Amino acid sequence: MTHQIAVIPGDGIGQEVTPAAVDVLEAVDAEFEFVEGDAGDAVKEATGEALPQETRDIAAESDATLFGAAGETAADVILPLREVVGSFANVRPAVSYPGLDAVQPDTDLVFVRENTEGVYSGIESEIADGVTTLTRVITEDASREIAEFGFDYAEENGYDDVTIAHKANVMRTTDGEFLEAAEAVAKERDADYDTALMDALAMHLIMHPEDYGVIICPNLAGDVLSDLAAGLVGGLGLLPSANVGTDNALFEPVHGSAPDIAGEGVANPSAMILSAAMLLDHLGYDEQGDRVRDAVETVLDEGPRTPDLGGDASTEEVTQAV
Amino acid sequence: MTHQIAVIPGDGIGQEVTPAAVDVLEAVDAEFEFVEGDAGDAVKEATGEALPQETRDIAAESDATLFGAAGETAADVILPLREVVGSFANVRPAVSYPGLDAVQPDTDLVFVRENTEGVYSGIESEIADGVTTLTRVITEDASREIAEFGFDYAEENGYDDVTIAHKANVMRTTDGEFLEAAEAVAKERDADYDTALMDALAMHLIMHPEDYGVIICPNLAGDVLSDLAAGLVGGLGLLPSANVGTDNALFEPVHGSAPDIAGEGVANPSAMILSAAMLLDHLGYDEQGDRVRDAVETVLDEGPRTPDLGGDASTEEVTQAV
Ligand SMILES: CC(C)[C@H](C(=O)O)[C@@H](O)C(=O)O
Ligand SMILES: CC(C)[C@H](C(=O)O)[C@@H](O)C(=O)O
Repeated sequence: MTHQIAVIPGDGIGQEVTPAAVDVLEAVDAEFEFVEGDAGDAVKEATGEALPQETRDIAAESDATLFGAAGETAADVILPLREVVGSFANVRPAVSYPGLDAVQPDTDLVFVRENTEGVYSGIESEIADGVTTLTRVITEDASREIAEFGFDYAEENGYDDVTIAHKANVMRTTDGEFLEAAEAVAKERDADYDTALMDALAMHLIMHPEDYGVIICPNLAGDVLSDLAAGLVGGLGLLPSANVGTDNALFEPVHGSAPDIAGEGVANPSAMILSAAMLLDHLGYDEQGDRVRDAVETVLDEGPRTPDLGGDASTEEVTQAV
Repeated sequence: MTHQIAVIPGDGIGQEVTPAAVDVLEAVDAEFEFVEGDAGDAVKEATGEALPQETRDIAAESDATLFGAAGETAADVILPLREVVGSFANVRPAVSYPGLDAVQPDTDLVFVRENTEGVYSGIESEIADGVTTLTRVITEDASREIAEFGFDYAEENGYDDVTIAHKANVMRTTDGEFLEAAEAVAKERDADYDTALMDALAMHLIMHPEDYGVIICPNLAGDVLSDLAAGLVGGLGLLPSANVGTDNALFEPVHGSAPDIAGEGVANPSAMILSAAMLLDHLGYDEQGDRVRDAVETVLDEGPRTPDLGGDASTEEVTQAV
């Protein structure tokens, strides 16, 4: 069976790392048809729209989407794309690889981030001159759904530690709802879990990442804590992510378009290739996904390496090595 | 001139570290009158109120307040206390000390956290069954005030790097207001500064804390990023904080009541004693404040050390050494 994959390189290094991931997908034993779409600063400049309707349609109709990165328009591209694919869970593994100079070499974390609400619900206004408000929304349904997903993920991927992150001591009603719904899910399944205030968790993750496994988070907490974990393992160049919905999904590196190094051909393609490996898992090609991850791990260990990891190899050389 | 200091030990290790700070204040060359107040879980148990009116009055009437920690009732104590003293700025230095096993030994950061609004404005409701909302408030006035304070602080304390943290790509109106107001202040003073998305900043702070100095943050961003910095320098046992208002101020360690070690007499008093040093600065005893900081630094370097830092000394021994 041939799967249709939407490919949206976007801006900056997105243009360099996305073809690398496509090369890898073409090399594995699976049938894909790639359909390319535009998004980001460049297409906005040309057409006035950062995410043209045609690109939305391509993503909506495909079995999965690979997205690279966008520049200034990142939020205008990625937030609607996450909606187009109906994704409710943003899955962000942060693993430190042997041989790399990580701040914490014992990190093996997976952030399971709620992907639809929280402060991202986007209801804002200037209610008086110089007085602005944002309505943060947390629902029982979305909180239950992300918790179900998180506990399933932990079980299927062999993680013993599940932590529910929150700030319910301050956001008593909204994060109170999140916490209550997530704890209810854990209890129904008789699953072990811990809860942690997101501020204290930030500290503990840095000092003792080895004490944690899967971390179920409200939207913004997942945004910040997963970037924190990127800092522990050696930078955003290594973190893939999956935005998972019921019938569709979007895969993207956690990094952005990196305008400082764009066009030089030296961007680290690892996060993007690891995102493609998550796409393989998602479509049922688990074995192929594992092989890609093993290949990335071997190359990270033995080289060649891109400059962000202290090497001098190009995106192309690293991709060929994988 | 004698200054009146409200002393509110609170719960858990608050009961152990607060007397340590009072001992230090009694040993320096300055005149203080100490008035003690109750707050926290124990007084709530006894009277139904975590923060009795009498304690509020003591804090309101004193020249400054020293607060230890509270347990389950922490938010019920500390948030109103911050209001009682009229504090708009929460100042949290995170410095790594020589000789301690820090994740990042080159850390010298000061978080200047907005202390009155953001998600802490606390306007929440359950608007339908299982649907909850919180109204986040950001005003131009409070944003300008914290930015003014942050740039003043940087100048007075010799920090060259000032960073404005925000998430204005998602919270466009509210963090847009924060960012615009803070940048306007910088431009009026012709001050150098950078801006950073709070998620990306979390990563960069972990990998390269030496690139940053003073970080001006909205309320929750300051909460999370300062705990992150605690993780970099060796834990919350070392971080003091000042809640600064126009005519009054409250000094507290960033750590909580640590029920796991409370009652054993081994709590690290450093954060609390360093908070007392910030109190000395605040009341104009700069020289005494510096001497206390030097003493803490010497003891951290040469010992004795409490168990959280790998030593086996008691709170009392460390305090006497200082
Ligand atoms: C670009 C931005 C809207 C996005 C987010 O906040 O989700 C990014 O930071 C991420 O984490 O993918
Ligand atoms: C106890 C809690 C309300 C408080 C806060 O969120 O401000 C604490 O985390 C802190 O940082 O002092």
